[in-house]
Amino acid sequence: MAADVELIVDVPRLEEKIILEEIGRSGLRFKLTNAKYTPLLWEENPAEISLIRTISMQRAAYCAAIREASGAKAINPLDAILTAGDKILTLSRFWRAGIPFPETVIALNGEAAERAEKLVKFPVIDKPPIGSWGRLVTLVKDSQSFKSIVEHRELYQSQALKTHLIQRYVDGGRDLRILVLGEEVLGAIWRSASSGDWRSNVARGGLVKMAELDEELRELALKVSSVIGGEFIAIDIFKENERYLVNEVNGVPEFKGFMEATRINVPRKLIEYVKELLRR
Amino acid sequence: MAADVELIVDVPRLEEKIILEEIGRSGLRFKLTNAKYTPLLWEENPAEISLIRTISMQRAAYCAAIREASGAKAINPLDAILTAGDKILTLSRFWRAGIPFPETVIALNGEAAERAEKLVKFPVIDKPPIGSWGRLVTLVKDSQSFKSIVEHRELYQSQALKTHLIQRYVDGGRDLRILVLGEEVLGAIWRSASSGDWRSNVARGGLVKMAELDEELRELALKVSSVIGGEFIAIDIFKENERYLVNEVNGVPEFKGFMEATRINVPRKLIEYVKELLRR
Amino acid sequence: MAADVELIVDVPRLEEKIILEEIGRSGLRFKLTNAKYTPLLWEENPAEISLIRTISMQRAAYCAAIREASGAKAINPLDAILTAGDKILTLSRFWRAGIPFPETVIALNGEAAERAEKLVKFPVIDKPPIGSWGRLVTLVKDSQSFKSIVEHRELYQSQALKTHLIQRYVDGGRDLRILVLGEEVLGAIWRSASSGDWRSNVARGGLVKMAELDEELRELALKVSSVIGGEFIAIDIFKENERYLVNEVNGVPEFKGFMEATRINVPRKLIEYVKELLRR
Amino acid sequence: MAADVELIVDVPRLEEKIILEEIGRSGLRFKLTNAKYTPLLWEENPAEISLIRTISMQRAAYCAAIREASGAKAINPLDAILTAGDKILTLSRFWRAGIPFPETVIALNGEAAERAEKLVKFPVIDKPPIGSWGRLVTLVKDSQSFKSIVEHRELYQSQALKTHLIQRYVDGGRDLRILVLGEEVLGAIWRSASSGDWRSNVARGGLVKMAELDEELRELALKVSSVIGGEFIAIDIFKENERYLVNEVNGVPEFKGFMEATRINVPRKLIEYVKELLRR
Repeated sequence: MAADVELIVDVPRLEEKIILEEIGRSGLRFKLTNAKYTPLLWEENPAEISLIRTISMQRAAYCAAIREASGAKAINPLDAILTAGDKILTLSRFWRAGIPFPETVIALNGEAAERAEKLVKFPVIDKPPIGSWGRLVTLVKDSQSFKSIVEHRELYQSQALKTHLIQRYVDGGRDLRILVLGEEVLGAIWRSASSGDWRSNVARGGLVKMAELDEELRELALKVSSVIGGEFIAIDIFKENERYLVNEVNGVPEFKGFMEATRINVPRKLIEYVKELLRR
Repeated sequence: MAADVELIVDVPRLEEKIILEEIGRSGLRFKLTNAKYTPLLWEENPAEISLIRTISMQRAAYCAAIREASGAKAINPLDAILTAGDKILTLSRFWRAGIPFPETVIALNGEAAERAEKLVKFPVIDKPPIGSWGRLVTLVKDSQSFKSIVEHRELYQSQALKTHLIQRYVDGGRDLRILVLGEEVLGAIWRSASSGDWRSNVARGGLVKMAELDEELRELALKVSSVIGGEFIAIDIFKENERYLVNEVNGVPEFKGFMEATRINVPRKLIEYVKELLRR
Repeated sequence: MAADVELIVDVPRLEEKIILEEIGRSGLRFKLTNAKYTPLLWEENPAEISLIRTISMQRAAYCAAIREASGAKAINPLDAILTAGDKILTLSRFWRAGIPFPETVIALNGEAAERAEKLVKFPVIDKPPIGSWGRLVTLVKDSQSFKSIVEHRELYQSQALKTHLIQRYVDGGRDLRILVLGEEVLGAIWRSASSGDWRSNVARGGLVKMAELDEELRELALKVSSVIGGEFIAIDIFKENERYLVNEVNGVPEFKGFMEATRINVPRKLIEYVKELLRR
Repeated sequence: MAADVELIVDVPRLEEKIILEEIGRSGLRFKLTNAKYTPLLWEENPAEISLIRTISMQRAAYCAAIREASGAKAINPLDAILTAGDKILTLSRFWRAGIPFPETVIALNGEAAERAEKLVKFPVIDKPPIGSWGRLVTLVKDSQSFKSIVEHRELYQSQALKTHLIQRYVDGGRDLRILVLGEEVLGAIWRSASSGDWRSNVARGGLVKMAELDEELRELALKVSSVIGGEFIAIDIFKENERYLVNEVNGVPEFKGFMEATRINVPRKLIEYVKELLRR
């Protein structure tokens, strides 16, 4: 008999550990899969729901593809993982749906980047389409620094890391992070950069504080979630002159900082959501 | 006024050159974009149709995403490029749709690969999910050689190149390649490995010969095309004991060898198809 | 006042820990430097002797260069680290000095490797000039497997990893490892491959057993040590038909397995040697 | 009968072509070896002199090692190629010999670099120990840009590219390049950065102009050459407040710009030098 729910991990973080505890408490039949050690097969009888919680986005996508093909519901679905996992795909969905984001030029390699420079005004943010925790996200203040960054990126082997999103820098020192689960906006926090970095990622020591969710934000978050096709996602939003600009979406959201700031029990909410899906 | 059709390239091959000539003859208003040199923008007024012909699959995906978001029809569509460009995503669609393919185990890294070894019988084909022209596709005859290949792959930086599709080896020394354009199966060729290699890729000196298209093959090809969501794709098929097994799909197909063997004018067909789409 | 002896590490292993304990017991004034965390400077007043025990050969070479330039004695000296750390440089010294080693062809990239294939008879060992613990050392049985290995290696970014030493395979399932400290041959062990691998490296689970040191071996070891210019090195030797063939030299030798098999207290010997050098 | 002189290349530039023409005119028996296509062997009967002119420093070192071991004279010798090819090894020789160079701190990885930052004053030059044409040489103006560069470098696979020389920035917009052949200082040129870059490398469009060689410069150049052990090298020197600071040495010097500015026929000089060596 197949399991109700499978938790797929690679390197379990705090988040995965407390999700697992919550599953343990839930009475659901479950299965734990470590994608680093377990060969994967398309199969006849998968768990009904696969919670995909690998750190590697690529691995997450492969797990979602294989489980969905086998008939499971993946959280998040493959399409949402692929889209949220790549900032060019994300912003393309935003553009199509009219969701506001900071002005951005794309350059698929170094030569294009040098021409893109003429289309923007410094300071800019330069970042590759993939990567988490602000990795390689660079605040570039002038043309010479930009050329150095482009030169460094050209030596990477990965085409994605050679690709540039060159984005207007939205100042402010903080951003909003909102968690959405199914049709419910769980809450929001402010993240501020710690001293010594300008990025607000919690993994970089960013500080967190609970934020108010007004109706505009709530609607924006639900729209983003629906456009990405996510079941359980985090959305990063800048506020500039009373206007919201969506920055990124995370398809395998970390929520340690969120729980601390909001006191919301995210894994419990998640497993309740899973149970409800199983009942349908 | 926007163009009717845009041709996006990075390193133009023979195929792109003759497509461009055909566009020139067609009377269509067109635009040529080299994605290596041109910054890309979501825009209000894109060409109606974007023919995406970059060698890099990653670049193809980004171009399709940006053009589709801007309202253009991309050939191929983003979804087809992403799916055809990754063999795990391809086979996942096949499994779901009941399209037959050689038995395959997936291992997302080296440890998983060592365990996957126990599930298969040598010889096997080991390959990464991405890559063209048979690159890194390895015929592995025994466990020791398998361990060496796994060890070599673990040193790559790219998660995709560390990922293994371990597949039953289908002998025969040749495969079928079928081109599908819209609802039309253009034709088929046999490709045989040249001496000195066991892979039949034309880029590796594989030999080509026109093949007959029976009704079963025609239906299979159209089913694959529809499952992948492609407008213009190539499908590689093995024949084993009178049974067809689909191996791969190519979302930016090369067709030089196909044209030589079948005398079908592929770029003409392609541009006629574009014209028909524009008339709709 | 400068220290008598500095121990430079990056990722301390058992070996470094027991060397450090032995230094602690010795009464010498010492300094511990972790090259991963400490900026390095050419300086006026270095420790008299620097024991260089980083896992990374490149880091070991840089530490030796900087300390020697500052006036310290490095163990091992820069020249020995560079030479032992690269198998082409090692074998070049051997050839010049008439030290026997298995027949070897060098290919500096893939095309040269395909031509080199014609000069050898399978099975061969294919390995890059750098790397420890048998990493990427591959037993290649036929031309097709060789081509696969070459293809995998060509995708590495490092020129050294693209370089091939193609070596006659010396069968036997075991090799001798000899430790030399200054003018003293400390001892020898046999290393045998564990089941599941054909390589005898202790780090791969190879089995160790004390070996007898005859006069021929002793002389060979001292000659190798002098040709490499090492103060404290390990030498790997094949025995084939009563003839010795030197395979490799290690300039930052691990000696855990050696100590277990011989009951020789290597760190004590090493620190006694350091003390004697300080007295000179 | 062995050749008098061998020219070893990988990707022939203008320099190698005119050296080859000059050899052709010389009446010497010669041999041309492309290290990308030719397997290399230690051999009994090498050419007497090997001119090593590969673009890749690693390949140059391997060719020199193998030819020297076989009894040839390599120009440059292995030791000079290794030393000039790595800026940490170069500066270590300079320090030992009292040759002045800009103040430099070494960091062997990212953590050490973040600590090294506290030892320097911005702006600084940050560069890896290997690489030609100013590649990755970065002018860093503040701590935040430094952190971005360190982060980019940490993602390289090569330990050398993760290594930082953090150097006081010597302003001036130009440097001297001196060519030394055996005991003769051939001449000197000023190189100035072209607009759009701050680096003066000719490969980056730097401008060249003949420079005067005073006695101090001549002596400095000969001292550098002797300390590096080079037969034919280029030396890059800054002039600051009437004081010379040596920056780098090149062991396979390009000399196109030098010939244009000085009208000195470098390949003729080189082949005359070879002939003289052969007569000895």
